[in-house]
Amino acid sequence: MAGNSFGEVFRVTTFGESHGPALGAIIDGCPPGLELSEADLQRDLDRRKPGQSRYTTARREPDQVKILSGVFEGVTTGTSIGLLIENTDQRSKDYSTIKDLFRPGHADYTYHHKYGVRDYRGGGRSSARETALRVAAGAIAKKLLQQQFGCEFYAGVMQIGPHCIDRDDAAFDWAQTHENPLFMPHADIAEATGEYLRDLLKQGDSIGARVRLEVTGVPVGLGEPVFDRFDADLAKALMSINAVKAVSVGDGFAVAAQRGSEHRDEITPDGFVSNHAGGVLGGITSGQTVIAEVAFKPTSSITREGRTIDVHGQPQTVVTRGRHDPCVGIRGVPIVEAMAALTIVDHWLRQRAQNADVWKYGKS
Amino acid sequence: MAGNSFGEVFRVTTFGESHGPALGAIIDGCPPGLELSEADLQRDLDRRKPGQSRYTTARREPDQVKILSGVFEGVTTGTSIGLLIENTDQRSKDYSTIKDLFRPGHADYTYHHKYGVRDYRGGGRSSARETALRVAAGAIAKKLLQQQFGCEFYAGVMQIGPHCIDRDDAAFDWAQTHENPLFMPHADIAEATGEYLRDLLKQGDSIGARVRLEVTGVPVGLGEPVFDRFDADLAKALMSINAVKAVSVGDGFAVAAQRGSEHRDEITPDGFVSNHAGGVLGGITSGQTVIAEVAFKPTSSITREGRTIDVHGQPQTVVTRGRHDPCVGIRGVPIVEAMAALTIVDHWLRQRAQNADVWKYGKS
Amino acid sequence: MAGNSFGEVFRVTTFGESHGPALGAIIDGCPPGLELSEADLQRDLDRRKPGQSRYTTARREPDQVKILSGVFEGVTTGTSIGLLIENTDQRSKDYSTIKDLFRPGHADYTYHHKYGVRDYRGGGRSSARETALRVAAGAIAKKLLQQQFGCEFYAGVMQIGPHCIDRDDAAFDWAQTHENPLFMPHADIAEATGEYLRDLLKQGDSIGARVRLEVTGVPVGLGEPVFDRFDADLAKALMSINAVKAVSVGDGFAVAAQRGSEHRDEITPDGFVSNHAGGVLGGITSGQTVIAEVAFKPTSSITREGRTIDVHGQPQTVVTRGRHDPCVGIRGVPIVEAMAALTIVDHWLRQRAQNADVWKYGKS
Amino acid sequence: MAGNSFGEVFRVTTFGESHGPALGAIIDGCPPGLELSEADLQRDLDRRKPGQSRYTTARREPDQVKILSGVFEGVTTGTSIGLLIENTDQRSKDYSTIKDLFRPGHADYTYHHKYGVRDYRGGGRSSARETALRVAAGAIAKKLLQQQFGCEFYAGVMQIGPHCIDRDDAAFDWAQTHENPLFMPHADIAEATGEYLRDLLKQGDSIGARVRLEVTGVPVGLGEPVFDRFDADLAKALMSINAVKAVSVGDGFAVAAQRGSEHRDEITPDGFVSNHAGGVLGGITSGQTVIAEVAFKPTSSITREGRTIDVHGQPQTVVTRGRHDPCVGIRGVPIVEAMAALTIVDHWLRQRAQNADVWKYGKS
Repeated sequence: MAGNSFGEVFRVTTFGESHGPALGAIIDGCPPGLELSEADLQRDLDRRKPGQSRYTTARREPDQVKILSGVFEGVTTGTSIGLLIENTDQRSKDYSTIKDLFRPGHADYTYHHKYGVRDYRGGGRSSARETALRVAAGAIAKKLLQQQFGCEFYAGVMQIGPHCIDRDDAAFDWAQTHENPLFMPHADIAEATGEYLRDLLKQGDSIGARVRLEVTGVPVGLGEPVFDRFDADLAKALMSINAVKAVSVGDGFAVAAQRGSEHRDEITPDGFVSNHAGGVLGGITSGQTVIAEVAFKPTSSITREGRTIDVHGQPQTVVTRGRHDPCVGIRGVPIVEAMAALTIVDHWLRQRAQNADVWKYGKS
Repeated sequence: MAGNSFGEVFRVTTFGESHGPALGAIIDGCPPGLELSEADLQRDLDRRKPGQSRYTTARREPDQVKILSGVFEGVTTGTSIGLLIENTDQRSKDYSTIKDLFRPGHADYTYHHKYGVRDYRGGGRSSARETALRVAAGAIAKKLLQQQFGCEFYAGVMQIGPHCIDRDDAAFDWAQTHENPLFMPHADIAEATGEYLRDLLKQGDSIGARVRLEVTGVPVGLGEPVFDRFDADLAKALMSINAVKAVSVGDGFAVAAQRGSEHRDEITPDGFVSNHAGGVLGGITSGQTVIAEVAFKPTSSITREGRTIDVHGQPQTVVTRGRHDPCVGIRGVPIVEAMAALTIVDHWLRQRAQNADVWKYGKS
Repeated sequence: MAGNSFGEVFRVTTFGESHGPALGAIIDGCPPGLELSEADLQRDLDRRKPGQSRYTTARREPDQVKILSGVFEGVTTGTSIGLLIENTDQRSKDYSTIKDLFRPGHADYTYHHKYGVRDYRGGGRSSARETALRVAAGAIAKKLLQQQFGCEFYAGVMQIGPHCIDRDDAAFDWAQTHENPLFMPHADIAEATGEYLRDLLKQGDSIGARVRLEVTGVPVGLGEPVFDRFDADLAKALMSINAVKAVSVGDGFAVAAQRGSEHRDEITPDGFVSNHAGGVLGGITSGQTVIAEVAFKPTSSITREGRTIDVHGQPQTVVTRGRHDPCVGIRGVPIVEAMAALTIVDHWLRQRAQNADVWKYGKS
Repeated sequence: MAGNSFGEVFRVTTFGESHGPALGAIIDGCPPGLELSEADLQRDLDRRKPGQSRYTTARREPDQVKILSGVFEGVTTGTSIGLLIENTDQRSKDYSTIKDLFRPGHADYTYHHKYGVRDYRGGGRSSARETALRVAAGAIAKKLLQQQFGCEFYAGVMQIGPHCIDRDDAAFDWAQTHENPLFMPHADIAEATGEYLRDLLKQGDSIGARVRLEVTGVPVGLGEPVFDRFDADLAKALMSINAVKAVSVGDGFAVAAQRGSEHRDEITPDGFVSNHAGGVLGGITSGQTVIAEVAFKPTSSITREGRTIDVHGQPQTVVTRGRHDPCVGIRGVPIVEAMAALTIVDHWLRQRAQNADVWKYGKS
C-alpha cells in the first residue's frame, strides 16, 4: 500500500533518507543456492556512487553495502536478505536555509501536502540517494539472470540536450559506455557532450537526458496479461526512478507514424526478421532483445534563481547551492539497468509459479 | 500474481475471451454510498464499442453491461461489484484458418510459448475485447472522482500517421473529440485524417496513433513513493493497454533537451506558473492538471500478406481478413481515460489509508 | 485491500449477495493444461447445496455453475476463469420485517456500522450463500492436487453439542461421512445425533459443531515463513468461513498440557513415528497428513425470541423465522475441504515461484 | 509471495537469522505525525528478551533497537521506518554437532527439503529470535492504537501443563502478569507453576502453554469480508508465531457444544449483554473487547534423547543442550500482544481506505 516495495516474488523493500544514519533494503523471495558476496553488489554501486567525475555531485559516499542475512557460507538460503549502507557524508547545514521553502521542480511541495511533516535535509526520502539500494538489489537480480539465462545488460546515455546518438550510427559502441564518464556509447559525441556540460556548469544550469536499455537473453514467456504485462511492469519500474518523465518500448512514440505492414515483425524459421516491438508481444516477452528508452528531466537544483513560495504561502526566491548533478540522467544509467533486472527476475519467478510445467516447452 | 487484477484498494479483476460466452469483472473496494446504475457504465461503453464508424471493426456488439452485486436500491454497498457483458457477435469460423499460425505482431507466438494451450478464436484473451470491462470499471471510477473532486477527463487522438495536432494550435478544442469519429480535438485535421484513413483501408494497411490525456481536479498528495509513485502507476496502467508502446508525463521525451531553468515549474502565491511536470512532483500529484500521452502501434491484422511460421516451425504466409480496426488508437481513447481514472481513484483511496488525518491539510 | 480475494497465485475473488441476481467468482492463476468441466465443480456444490435433508435450510437452489472463460476445448488455458451461479429461490419478503433490526449474533450490526448501507435481504453479502463459490473454486484446487500429488481430502463432523466422536474409536470410519446427512464419520453416533437434532428443531434452537479435516499426499516444503506459514494461512482460510470461532492444527489446544518429550514427532529411516504436529513443522509442510479442526458456532437464526435494538437504538425483540440450518457446521464440511484445498494449491504454486529448482530435491 | 511481510497498509517486513550479524525490519505505511522514540520500542522488547528468569533461555541479548529512518525530530514522517537489532551473544559452536541432523519437532527437516541449504546455527531463520522485530513493530502499532482509540492490551499465560487459570476465578487479575516471571494473571497459580517448571527443568523436559489476549477499545467496523475478516487475519497473525498450534476467538472450541439461544450475544440500548463472540460479528469488530486464545507447543529442544535421522537418511539420536526455554509460551505473551496490535492497526488503516467517509458514522 505504502509504496516502498517493488516486485511480487523477488520483492525489494527499502528505507532511508538522504541525511539519516543509514539506508537499507530487504529482498524477500530470492531463490536459494545463488553464490553471493558483498563484492557482487559493490560493482554496480560503484558505478552509481556520487563524486566520481566533474559531472556528478561532489558528495563523497563510499556506499559500502553490508549483507546482514539470507546468505550463509557464501550462498543464498532462500530467506530474506537484509542490506545496509551507512551514510557518511551528510552535510545537513547546507540545507537549513531552505527548510521552509518549496524548491521549484522538487518534491518539497508535494511531500509537505501529503505527509504534513518531512525531513527537509537533502530532500529526505525524495532524494535520489535511495536509488543506491535499487542498484544493490538489481545487482543480485542481474547475477541471477546471467547465471540462469546468460542475460546481458546494455545501457547508456543517448541524448543530453542537443547532443544525440543514433542507434544505427557506425560509431555506436556499447563498450564505450565504460570508457567515458557520461556512459555514452559513442566516443566522439561523448567528448563533445563533455564540453557542453562544462559550459553548462559555468552557467549554473542543468540539462535533461535520454537513456537507452537493451537486454539480451530474456526468455520467451515472461509477463502476466492482461494488466501485469511485462512492458507495463517495466514501464512502472522505469518511471519510478527519480526524474524520469517518459518510457518507451521498442520503437516507442515513433509507432504513431508507422503502418502495420512496416511495424509488425515478421517471423521465419530462423526467427524474427526485425524488432520494432522491442521484445514484447501481447505483454509477454518474445525471446528477442528487450529494448526500452527513458527520459530524465534536468535536475531542479541549480544556482539560477527561481521563484517559489514558502510553507506560509509567501513569495520567495531560491538558489540551490548544495552539491548536485548537472545531468541526473548520467548516474541514472545503472539505475535503469537495476530496475529492468528487478522487473525481469520478478516476472521470471512469477512465470514459474503458474507455468512451471509449461516452462520446459517455453524454452525450446 | 497472475495479472488479471488492477489496483490495490479499488481493485478490478477481469475475465473473458473474445469468443467465449461472456466477459466480466469484479470491482472490490468501491466505497459505499455511491449512486450507481448500469446507465452510468453504458455511456463510456458505447464510446468504446465496435461497429460505430467505418474506422473501427465491423463486429457489432451491444456491449450491454449488467450489475450483478454490490449495488442495493441504486447505491453501492461497499461489497464487491460483479459486472457481466455477454458476447453476441462471435464469428468463430473467421479464425479457424489461422489456428496453427503465429500472426506476426500478435500475441499468438508468446501465448503459445507461455501457456502451451490457447484459445485462438479472435485472439482469445489477448484480444482488445477485454478492454470493455476496463471501460465499465473506469466509468465507476470517473463518477467517484467527479463527485468527490469535480475531476474532468479530456482525451483525444493527437496524431495518426503524418497527421499531427499541436496542443497550442488556436483551433485545438477538446469539445471536437465528441464531434468526429476519430476523437480528434481539431476539426480540420480530423477531416484530413479521415481521408487518409479511407485511403489506407483501400490499401489494406493500418496505422499507429498518439493519444493525449488531461485530467483536471486531481487533488494534491496522491502517489506512494518511492516505487508506487503516481506517475509510475499511471505509466503501468497506460502501458497495460493493448498496442501501447510508449507513455509520457508532462513534457515527456522533450525533457531530454530541456534545461533546469526552463523545465522547473516556478511557484507564486497564485500557484504554479507552468506545468512542464504534468501534475506530478516526486511521484506525488501536485494539484495541477495531470497530463500524459501514449503511443498506439498500428494493428497487425491487415490484409497485406506477411511472413510467419506455424506451431511446427514451418514457414507460412498470413493475411488477416476478419474484422479489424485500421487504427486501434481511436477506440483507445475511452480506454486511456478509464485506466487513468482507475489509477487516480486507487491512489486516492490508498492515500486515505495512511494519511486520512493529513488529508484535510492536503486539500487546503 | 477490500477482502473479497483469497490466495496469492491461485487467487479467487468472489461477488454476490444472498438475494441478488447471481453470485460469481474469478479464479486467476490456475495453471494451464488441466482438464476441467462444469461437472467437476458441480459434485462438491451438490454436497454443500441447501435443501438436501431435514437438517439443512429448506431453501432450494440448484446451484448450477457456469464456466464463462479460461477453459477452451475442455482444458484450462492459464487465463482467468469466470464462474457464475444464478440465484433462483430468493424469497425477499421473508426478510422485510427485520430490515431495521440488528439480529443478535448476526453481522447486521457490524455491516451497518462499517458500510452505512447494507443489503438486508437474507444477510446480503454476509450470508453463507457466498460459500458456494468457495466450494466451486475449491473443486478446481482439489482436482489439481489429486492429479499432481494424489492428495485425498477427508472431512467430517466430529461433534454436535454433546455428541462427540473419538478419532481413535474403532468404529471411526471416514467412509461413513458419505452415508449419513450429518457428514459424521461414525454410524452410531450419527444416528443418535440425528435424534438430538430433531428434538432441537422442535425447540426452535440451534447447536454448534466441530469439524475435522485430514489431507493426505501434501508434499513436503509448502509454506513461506516467517509470516505466511502454511499453518498460518490455513488458519486464516478456515477462520474466514462463516461461523467458525476456532482453528487448530495437529494436537491443537491439547499441546498446552503436553511435554516436549511427548509432543515432538521422532523420525526414523521409515519416516515420522507420530503426527502430533499435524503435518507442519516451522510453518512448512512435512509430507505427513495435514490435520486441522474447526469449531462452528450455532446459527443465531432461531425461533426463540431474543433481545436486540433497531437502527435507531430502540429496544426490540426478534424471532428469525426464514429458512435456516439448525447446525451450520454440517454444510460446513465441504467448505472446510474447499478452503484447505485453496490454501494448499496456493502454497504449492507459491513454492514453485521461488524454489522451482529445489523442488526436485524436495520430493525425493 | 515469500512470506517475510505482515500487513497490507501497516506492513512489516523482517530479516535476520539467530546467529547472523543483525536482525531488522522495515515498517511501511505508518501514518505520519506519531511521536516515536527508540524507548517506545524498547519497553516491549525488554519484556520479550531472553535471560531474564530461570524459566527462559540463558542467552543474553540486550536487544537494543535502533531507528534508522522514517522518524524526524521525534515524529514519524510517513516514510518507511528502518529498525535494526544487532546480535551480540551468538555461540555458534553450540550448534555444530547437529549440523547434519533433523532435530525432531524442529524446522530442520522442512527447511532442508524446501530450500536445499540452510543456516543451521541456532535454527537460523526458523529461530524464535525473529520475533524480536515483531515485538518492536508491534510496539509502534500499540502506541498508535492507544493514542487513537485508547486501546489497552491484556495478555497472560492461562495454562502451563496441568496448571490452569479460570477466567472467572475471583483471584484472576491482569495486573499479576507484571508481578511474576510467568506472566500469569493469578498469583497463587503462578507460584505453583513455578515449582512445577523447576522440577521439569531438572528432568530436562519442556511443557506447552495457553495464552489469553483481551484488547479493549477496538472500534466497531474493522475487518474486510468475505476473506479478510478481522478474526481470520487475527488467526493468521497468531498462528504465524513460532510454536503456536491453535487459535480461538471468543468462546472458541466451546461453541461446538453451545446452543444458539445461549451463544448469541443479545443487544440492549445499553450495549451487548454478553461477549461469547469475542468482539467479532460477521468478521467485523463489534466494538466489544476482542478476546482470543492460543496454544503454544512445548519446545522440542530438550536434553532427553530422541530418535531422528540425518541428511543422509541414517538413524541418529539427538540431545539438544544449547540454551532453551522450558516453556516458550511464557515469552510468547508480548509476541501475542504485538501480532494482535499489528492486525488491529492494519485493519484500522485498511478500513480508512475504502470507508473513510463512513467512519464518522461508524464511531457514533
